Amino acid sequence: MWSRCNKEFPQVADDEREQGRTFLPKFDANGLLTAVVVDHETKDVLMVAFMDREALNATLRTGEAHFHSRSRGRLWKKGETSGNVLRVKEIGVDCDQDAIVLRAVPAGPSCHTGARSCFYRRIESGELVSAES
Amino acid sequence: MWSRCNKEFPQVADDEREQGRTFLPKFDANGLLTAVVVDHETKDVLMVAFMDREALNATLRTGEAHFHSRSRGRLWKKGETSGNVLRVKEIGVDCDQDAIVLRAVPAGPSCHTGARSCFYRRIESGELVSAES
Repeated sequence: MWSRCNKEFPQVADDEREQGRTFLPKFDANGLLTAVVVDHETKDVLMVAFMDREALNATLRTGEAHFHSRSRGRLWKKGETSGNVLRVKEIGVDCDQDAIVLRAVPAGPSCHTGARSCFYRRIESGELVSAES
Repeated sequence: MWSRCNKEFPQVADDEREQGRTFLPKFDANGLLTAVVVDHETKDVLMVAFMDREALNATLRTGEAHFHSRSRGRLWKKGETSGNVLRVKEIGVDCDQDAIVLRAVPAGPSCHTGARSCFYRRIESGELVSAES
């Protein structure tokens, strides 16, 4: 199919990626795409992580969020130790398919610090303050 | 200050990053951190992009979102051509300070395709469908 030929028709492939119905995830030079997790109910951003193809497939297959740990260099199921898994209800895909949004139901705190969201601070006058204040 | 010494006390620096009031943005091997833009009003995720130190500083200084374009290899003010700037109302910072959330007021569509959000599709039964449906 000419419209799928990345090498010879890169522009067509870009159009297909942006407008088509085919899921063509675009991994970066390190084989990763960005995954933003939002709370399905409150819409709060809970965490940001990265997925390689293995993590993406594991997420699609199981319905629970899996990521690629850049520090540990391996597949990482969110909640594998803590039990705080993320049950994925819906996956949004961006225009060039290099980022996805997981709308998920968290089984517990999403942050390893015990916070509900990793974004528990915000910048105010150059300093970090509690996001709740 | 020993508590700021990254080289000799990496663990202390990590604690400071997670618990402290000091904004210590953590750029990756490519000098980038992840920026998620959400609509300040609806909380919808509008786009995901990357910032180097220059883009972060330009954003903090001007109150309008700037990113680093990986494809063009340069500073990119969102809306510099289209006029669809993002006025930043609040910046959330995650636990290890390698990702930020910009809560912003968009002057127009955030996506270069003309869509309000770059996440105008979602996965359903392995295919991409309109996020509105």
